[in-house]
Parts: sequence; structure tokens; C-alpha cells
Amino acid sequence: MDESLLGTPVVQARVRAGMTVNELVEQFGNARAYNGGSLWRAVNIYENMLRDREAVKFFGLSGAMVPGGMGGIVADLIDAGHIDVLVSTGANLTHDTIEAIGCKHYHGTEICDDVKLREEEINRIFDIYLPTTAFIKFEEFMQDVFSQLERGQKYSIQEVTNLIGKNLDRGILATAARKDIPVFCPALQDSMIGLQYWMFNQTGGVTIDAFKDMSKLMDICFAAKKSGAFLVGGGVPKNYIFQSRLMTPEGFDYAIQLTGDRPDLGGLSGATLDEAKSWGKLTEDATSQTVYGDATINLPLIVAATLERLQK
Amino acid sequence: MDESLLGTPVVQARVRAGMTVNELVEQFGNARAYNGGSLWRAVNIYENMLRDREAVKFFGLSGAMVPGGMGGIVADLIDAGHIDVLVSTGANLTHDTIEAIGCKHYHGTEICDDVKLREEEINRIFDIYLPTTAFIKFEEFMQDVFSQLERGQKYSIQEVTNLIGKNLDRGILATAARKDIPVFCPALQDSMIGLQYWMFNQTGGVTIDAFKDMSKLMDICFAAKKSGAFLVGGGVPKNYIFQSRLMTPEGFDYAIQLTGDRPDLGGLSGATLDEAKSWGKLTEDATSQTVYGDATINLPLIVAATLERLQK
Amino acid sequence: MDESLLGTPVVQARVRAGMTVNELVEQFGNARAYNGGSLWRAVNIYENMLRDREAVKFFGLSGAMVPGGMGGIVADLIDAGHIDVLVSTGANLTHDTIEAIGCKHYHGTEICDDVKLREEEINRIFDIYLPTTAFIKFEEFMQDVFSQLERGQKYSIQEVTNLIGKNLDRGILATAARKDIPVFCPALQDSMIGLQYWMFNQTGGVTIDAFKDMSKLMDICFAAKKSGAFLVGGGVPKNYIFQSRLMTPEGFDYAIQLTGDRPDLGGLSGATLDEAKSWGKLTEDATSQTVYGDATINLPLIVAATLERLQK
Amino acid sequence: MDESLLGTPVVQARVRAGMTVNELVEQFGNARAYNGGSLWRAVNIYENMLRDREAVKFFGLSGAMVPGGMGGIVADLIDAGHIDVLVSTGANLTHDTIEAIGCKHYHGTEICDDVKLREEEINRIFDIYLPTTAFIKFEEFMQDVFSQLERGQKYSIQEVTNLIGKNLDRGILATAARKDIPVFCPALQDSMIGLQYWMFNQTGGVTIDAFKDMSKLMDICFAAKKSGAFLVGGGVPKNYIFQSRLMTPEGFDYAIQLTGDRPDLGGLSGATLDEAKSWGKLTEDATSQTVYGDATINLPLIVAATLERLQK
Repeated sequence: MDESLLGTPVVQARVRAGMTVNELVEQFGNARAYNGGSLWRAVNIYENMLRDREAVKFFGLSGAMVPGGMGGIVADLIDAGHIDVLVSTGANLTHDTIEAIGCKHYHGTEICDDVKLREEEINRIFDIYLPTTAFIKFEEFMQDVFSQLERGQKYSIQEVTNLIGKNLDRGILATAARKDIPVFCPALQDSMIGLQYWMFNQTGGVTIDAFKDMSKLMDICFAAKKSGAFLVGGGVPKNYIFQSRLMTPEGFDYAIQLTGDRPDLGGLSGATLDEAKSWGKLTEDATSQTVYGDATINLPLIVAATLERLQK
Repeated sequence: MDESLLGTPVVQARVRAGMTVNELVEQFGNARAYNGGSLWRAVNIYENMLRDREAVKFFGLSGAMVPGGMGGIVADLIDAGHIDVLVSTGANLTHDTIEAIGCKHYHGTEICDDVKLREEEINRIFDIYLPTTAFIKFEEFMQDVFSQLERGQKYSIQEVTNLIGKNLDRGILATAARKDIPVFCPALQDSMIGLQYWMFNQTGGVTIDAFKDMSKLMDICFAAKKSGAFLVGGGVPKNYIFQSRLMTPEGFDYAIQLTGDRPDLGGLSGATLDEAKSWGKLTEDATSQTVYGDATINLPLIVAATLERLQK
Repeated sequence: MDESLLGTPVVQARVRAGMTVNELVEQFGNARAYNGGSLWRAVNIYENMLRDREAVKFFGLSGAMVPGGMGGIVADLIDAGHIDVLVSTGANLTHDTIEAIGCKHYHGTEICDDVKLREEEINRIFDIYLPTTAFIKFEEFMQDVFSQLERGQKYSIQEVTNLIGKNLDRGILATAARKDIPVFCPALQDSMIGLQYWMFNQTGGVTIDAFKDMSKLMDICFAAKKSGAFLVGGGVPKNYIFQSRLMTPEGFDYAIQLTGDRPDLGGLSGATLDEAKSWGKLTEDATSQTVYGDATINLPLIVAATLERLQK
Repeated sequence: MDESLLGTPVVQARVRAGMTVNELVEQFGNARAYNGGSLWRAVNIYENMLRDREAVKFFGLSGAMVPGGMGGIVADLIDAGHIDVLVSTGANLTHDTIEAIGCKHYHGTEICDDVKLREEEINRIFDIYLPTTAFIKFEEFMQDVFSQLERGQKYSIQEVTNLIGKNLDRGILATAARKDIPVFCPALQDSMIGLQYWMFNQTGGVTIDAFKDMSKLMDICFAAKKSGAFLVGGGVPKNYIFQSRLMTPEGFDYAIQLTGDRPDLGGLSGATLDEAKSWGKLTEDATSQTVYGDATINLPLIVAATLERLQK
């Protein structure tokens, strides 16, 4: 038997009352099997990435994470200086804005009558409910923000997300604006923010240039000595972050993705990070890890454990 | 026992040599359980949708469907008049263009060394390989297309996809251009086409207005007496198609989605079509069906069975 | 570029009205990506396996396949001589018996009130409903069958499944008994058949020896020059079939599995067939293929296409 | 709007360095969406179940949990009096025995050459490796244990698992034997323990009665005032635990299941706990929760949080 094929022995995980989150993750490391092992490796990589002062930190946010209560963690990561570039779906920015203007998402249930919900003007995201009334307040706010755009001017999408953030005092967009962190959202049209803008600009005369952001993003990429990516879900944020490295000589040095998709369907959201190496999106010797599962469990777990390690 | 709760009895499916695809789907209808039953219902809905002359037919395309050999079916559906509006990811349009200019995707394997593939300049999409040489020819073609844009002008994304199609003689974009079917692609930046445009426009002076498409899309929606949506995968195409109905009094009347995602993770791609009813994206009495699985199996199956029925 | 890494080019799949199932599968072979490609390869392997007169054919049946209308295909495969050894869960044999004695499963819906179903005495299997009345007839039948067992005797589980089949005139167990095909069911206790036996034997004096079957199975394995396995789902049937090869010098030569599980969770049901090679359950040069998805779609597809090919 | 449809508002989850596991789970409860919300509810139920002195606690163990390092948690739960009845796959008991006799599982990788592993006599379970040498020591041990069985006697499977445990000093079987907790394993034949027994008994004269356990299990069920089930994975353990309640007037009062399967495929492992209510396996007003995901993450999380709460 070629013993070099064997790693260290599996040590049965043990848990106890009152253990900290990183102590739990270290037990995952003892067991080190399946996605528990992957999560432990993801924490190792994230710790290294956050400790690496040379690395520019990208964060991709897709899936209904803000309605699902994960937006606070993202805002806190920005505030702590752990995110340099955020790429998000328009939906997450919409819901972040909705919370920041004082509206709420509500705990509901997926076992329900959607026609009745429609009649009651409650919009459902799996087991989270959002009353249509929130969109009325949202419309007022957005129209006010857009009225601050100058007619005749051409804006990038990032300038728009920054403007929204400047009009808010909490949440992802507000924190990013305060910390001067760019928030890219390539498909802004594909969101309630986009629909609001379309309504605004029917009489508007403002232009949002779909490509004006790209130079800013590319400048960041070319200037970065090293870089890392933390991807929650796939979709446009994952691809947009990764494709930025098709233009530079080097790919990402660190990459972590949390996804519930599977690789064998061919879609990008479930694609492995090794596959990304064939494209040069990751460097050959990048450290990378996918954790398959639900981000509402795995994101808080990984962030809490990594922060605990950083304090040591 | 309340017998009204019971539908018709399960009839064990039977197969035989030489049966047609719709004969097989009818056997799924006899069994009518799990996703086999869902697929049979999807064919029923798609048949009704295609027979309904009043219904405007939307088609959403995400996932790596063109590299996976599903682009021909989409092109043929456009050619046959079964698609009125196409919304696609930029990646599918990129790969469609690559095939249309004579480059090929190749059968490979996912069990491989991605660093070696990188060295050999082969890009991997699960078990499909694409040599980097294709991108050289693609660059030449795209730069030539973009040079046809007039400086100082403001274009919509759909005008760009139409222009690409006019420069090609086969595939999705070519067929759509020939049949005058609009192809929307909200996140065009997020694709190789987008990267090519960015390179072009560094010295360019052309503007692509992210929102210029929306009025065209809304006009189609407001004019439609009825409408149906066939969604392959989720992502931006699904949301963009569905959100177009947030502005109109009525939602979609027919909807079919093929997805490999699951609803309990909260993401849009796996969200049920019932959930869409709570938002008004589907009408209350819409007929709709999700088929969970791999679209490289379920798309050809559904289309072949539906076409067979339409001939009767 | 090392061109030997590239297989044949992807040919876009094309479908047409009236095509046969194998013509569709050949289109999957043109595209040959993701699970569509896997399904085409599975048909290739199954065709070779069924044409190989030296190969003993094992079939593993788990998941609620009989309630889901897939039992007829299994019975027909036995009748056609395409199954030499069947290993099943007890549940499938229970539901096969229920149908064979004239009771029915019914089309229902998974969007329902299970407490109400309980009150109405309707038992649910996802979207299939089975009235409790069926179990009353089932009890009568099973008690009659068990009364044919001789007191003081020791039976193998396979002798019991054979006895049930001899008392029936249609379905899997009846066909297997008529064709003298052994039906193994290692966890017979874990089923309604098992519960009926327990009730019978409280006053019984019969013994079912959990291990009496194993010699019969091992004799088949040792006598087989070659062997193939078709696995629907995982569970005990998959493991029991595969572990039979841990005792013989050679593993399976052909293997196909249909599963909806994923490999990264570590469970046997989602485990790859390559993993089985490390254990010697498959021979080094076995041809094998997993198709991920729903067996109510993929089983009829594969069987219909393979039968069509065998007629040529 | 009918406000009674809305639960409490979503509170964005917040994490901090050094927080305890239950503090993290309470943040899941603030967010309470998707599977993070489900996990919080599962902890609530498990806390109530463990605090309920009247409730008999069942635990179902399937999936390769012992190789994956989860066996220690199960042994500790038994030791702490939190498991009254264990139902396991044979594989988990095999691997528990292998560890208890001093052999090890090793950390490996799923990206490997399984034919080479075969040549090196290393058996793979996703990313866990087990050298064949372990099975040699295992054989010696098992043959010694089986030699303690009396010829001419008829044993139940639980008596056999108890005997193995008595010959060991650590792990699940040893702890269960020491605490006199029955370990049921309906498909014992379907495991390496089963294969060892078959080899032993070729010259043996011992009988293992497949059904002898059932009366013991039923006695426990009939005697239980209340009962709860914690299910890791599905398979035979889930069904065997649940079907025991088809005979009693009442179903389970508490139920938690961790699964990576999905409901729409019809299989038992992915079936919802609501579905189980239609069969009466759960009482009408049972509190129950499924958490979809990987048990190597969710099991330690839930157990650690619950133990923390129990200390308060």
C-alpha cells in the first residue's frame, strides 16, 4: 500500500455545551469528511485571505440573502474592512434598501396558498413574506433618489448604487457608501430598483451606461497584487467576479464558494472552482473550496469562525 | 374516505421498442408521479401554450445550454414561430456566436486535471471543452461587428444582439435576427461578448444604455392579450421575464420551468411557480409546472413530444 | 494544444415530431453533455450488457418506484429475460402486491393537508395517494400466504418473496416467480410485508433466517462469468448487489445507476461508480455510468431506447 | 392585508468572534429563513424532546456517518442518556467496530484514480480512505465474536449487535452495550458484518432470525407514553423507526430529520415529515422539522446547541 495516499486519520468529532463556533469548526476539521471537511477548509482559506494584506477581497452575493437575514453579516464585513469589492444581484440591493428605509420582511411559511397571499398583497420568498406596502414606501424613496441624478448625464451602475447608499444610514449599500466600497450590479435592470429607474426615466433624460463600470473594475483587477473571492451563490455575481480575471495575467489566489447547486448540470452556479482554473480565473496554485449546502447556515458559521481566529 | 381527494388510478408505465417520444410521455402520464408526472403536465401546458394564438411566447435561457448542445432546439423553436421574445444569459449568446462562426465545442470529461487543461489552453464547462483558439476567432468577429456601431450613438442591448445576429447565418442569434425576434440579455457585460465590447469601446465613443430595452419589453407586455413563459434554468432570464409582469395588470397565463435547483434554499432559480403567483407574476389561474432535473434531458423530451402533438 | 484531450465535436441536438425514443437518445449523444450525455452512455452500456449472453443481470430497485408507476417496466424486463436477479426494498414488493391483488394507487398532489389525509385514511407518497382500505385487503392476502408456510420450518427471505409471487398472477413478484427469478429483499422486516409477517408469526413458529439467502446469492456470483448491474436508486439494494462482489475475485463488468442523490454527502446512494472500483465491486475496466435525475423519467427513457436498439 | 399571515419580522443575523454555538443558532432564529431557520426550529424541538422525561428517544443512523467522523457524537449521546433506541445501517456498525478495534479511517480526496486505489488496496468513501488491511483485523475480531454464539441457538440481530458491543470498549456499539441500549439493524446481511457472519456460519449451525427483534421493538413502542425520533439520513433506519408506529395508536410526538435528498423524487429518504403524518407515523400535532443539507455540518451544530441549552 502506498501510504502517501493516506492523509491524517479521521478523528471522531466531539461536541460539548458552550463550545465556541470555531471550536466546533475545528471538530469538523477532525472529522474532515464531505461538506463538514469542506467548511473547515473554507475557514482556513478565508482566514488566510483576510490576513493577507496584499489581497484585494471580492464578495459575490446572490440568492435571496437579504430577505433571508444574511445582509447584516455582509454589511458588517464591509464595515470591518473585509470586503473591497461587492458584486450583487439587484434583488439583494432592493431588499437591503427596503430594510434600510424601515420596512420589514416577515417570517412566514412555504406551506401556504399563494393565490390568497396575492389577494392579501403579500409577496413570498420561500418562507419569507414581504407585504406590498413596503414597495410603496420603496417607490417614494427610489424616485427621490433618482431625482438627484442630473439630466443629460451618463452614470455607471456603480455610481447609482453608491448614490442609493448615500441616501441610507444602515445596511449593505449605506455601509459600502460610507466606506467607499464599490457595489457592482451588472443586471440592475433585472430588479425592482431597475423597474423604479425605468419608471423614473420615462420622463428622464438620464443615461445609465451598462459598460461604464467595467473600467473601474478592471483598474482594480490590474492594480491588485493578489486577490480573493468569497462567493455566496452563483449567477451573475460569480461570473462577473471571475471573468474580470480573464483579462489579467493572473487569476484569483483565494476562492470560496457556497452553493446549493450541483456540478453535473453544467450551470455556472454549481461549477467547481477547479473548472475555473482551466479558464485561468483562478491561478494554478490558488487555494479554493466549495461548500455545498444552504448559505443561511454556512455563511454565518464560516464568518463567525474566521473572525474568532482573527482575534488570536 | 373523501374520494374526491383521489385522482385517477396510477397505471403502470409500459415501454416498447420503436415507440415515439410522445408515446413515451403518455406513459409518464399513466404513471404520473414525481417528475415524470410533472414532465407530462409540462407537455400538456406547452401544447396549449403553443396552440394559443393570442399568447405571446417568452423563452428564458440560462445554464450552459449552447455548449451542452441545446442551442439548436432553441434556434429551431424560433424558426418555427414558437418563441416571440428570448431572454438569455450572455454566456449562451457568446457560445452561440462561437459555433456560428465555425468554431466547435468538444466532448471531454469532468475527471481531469484543470491545471493541465489551462496549460493546453482548453477551457472546461463540466464535461465540455472549448479551446482558447476559438476565442481568437471570436475576438476578430466581435470587433468587426462592433465596428459597425456608430460613434456617438446610444444603443440598447437588444440592438446589439440583433446586430450580432445579422452578421451570422446560423444559430440562435442569426435565426432571431432573421425572424425579427428580440433577444434580451440584461447582463451583457457579464459575458465574453461584454468583455469584447469593453475592449472595443476603450477607444470607442459608443454608449450601450442599460435601460433602453425596457420600454420595448414593456410595450410587448402591455400589448399581449395573453402570455406564456418557458424557462430553462433560472437566473437573470427567469427574473427578467417574470418581473416584466409586475408592471402589467395581468401575469403569465402559462409557465413551464426546467431547473435542477431546489426551492428550500430561497434562491430564485429553484423557486416554485406558485411562489410567483404571490407576486402576481403569474395570474391566479395560470397553468404552470416545474420539472426538476437536467435540461439536457428534459428540454429535448418536452419539445419533441409537444411538436408531435402539434402535428395531430 | 494537446488535441488528444478533445473528443468529437458537440453537435447541437435536433428534435422533430414523431421521432422514436432511441432517435431522441441519439440526439442526446450528439450533444453529449451533462446528464443527457450520461443517459446516452447508459443506453450504450445497457445495450451491450443485455446483448452479452455471458453476463448475469442484476437489478436493484429502491425508491417508491411501484407507487410511481415504474413496476410494470421491471416486470416486463423480467418477463423478457433481461433480469436474472432482483434485489428490492420491501416497500416496492409491498406496493407490487397491493396492485397485484387489485388495489390501486391514485394520482394526488403534494400540496395538501396531511392531517386531513390522515383523517380520511389516505396515505401519501409525495403526489401519490393510497387509501388505507388497500391495506385491509393486503392483510387478508398476506395472512393467507403466510399460512402456507410450514410450522417448524426455516425459510429464506427469497423463499418468502417467491411464495408471495406464486400466489399472484401479475406484477413483479408474480412474473419473477413464474420465470423462476430470485427476488432478494434483505430488509424484509422493514416493510408492510414484514409487519404482516410479524403479526402472523406471533402465534406462528416459523423462522425466517436472515442469512439463508446469502449462499444462493453467492453461488450465483461465483458461477457468473460476467455480470452487470442496473440500479434504480441506492439504499440496501445497491449495497447488497455490490457487496456480493467483495467475495468474488472479479467485480461487475457493467453498471448503470439512476440516482437523485449527490456524491459529496458521503452516502452510498449518491456514491459514484468509480468509487465502487476502489472496493473491487466493479472490475477495473468495467463500463459504468451514473445518470443523476428522476428515475420516473430516466428509467422508461433508457429501457425504451435500449429495447429499440435490441430489435435492430 | 391580513396581518395574521405575517410572523415576526426578520432580524438580520449578526455574528461575532468567540460566540458560542447556541448563540450562533439563535442568530439563525433571528434570520429564520430557508434551512437556517429550519435548523433553529430543529434545535427547539430537540431541546424539548430531550427535556421530556416521558419521551422514548429513537435515533436513526444512515449514510457513511462513522467514516465521516460523526460516530463519536452518537456514542456520546448514548452515554448521556439521550438515545433509548438506535437503528443503524450495517455499514455504520461495521465502521464503528473497525475504529473500536484500533483501525483508522484516513483523510483522502475524491479527486483520485480509483483503479490505482484498488491496486493499493485502499477503499474510498467519497474523500475518506480505508485501507484493506483494516478488514483483515476486522475479520479476525468478528470471527472471534461469532465463535461466542452457541450452536443450535436462534439469535435476534439486536442480540448480535449487543454481543459485538460487549467485546469492544469504545464507540457506538460498546457504549450501547454498556448502557443496555438496543441497536437494531434490520439489514445486517447488507454489510461487512453480514459477510463475516456468512463466512462464519457456513460451518456454523447458528440461526439469526430476521424477525426476532420486532417484538422487542414493538414492546418498547407500546410501552412508550410519548416518543421522539432523530433521523440522520433516511434509508432503512428511517422507515424502520417510523413503521414501528403503524402498529400503535399514536405516532411520534417529536421528529427531526437531517437529509440531503429532496422530496420531489418520491423516495423515502427525502420525504417530508408532514407526509409521515398522513400515515400516522407522526401524531397530528407532532412538532417536526427537516433540515436539508450535509449531516457532517448539521448534526454537530444541532447537538452542540442543544446541549448548551440543556445546561441552562
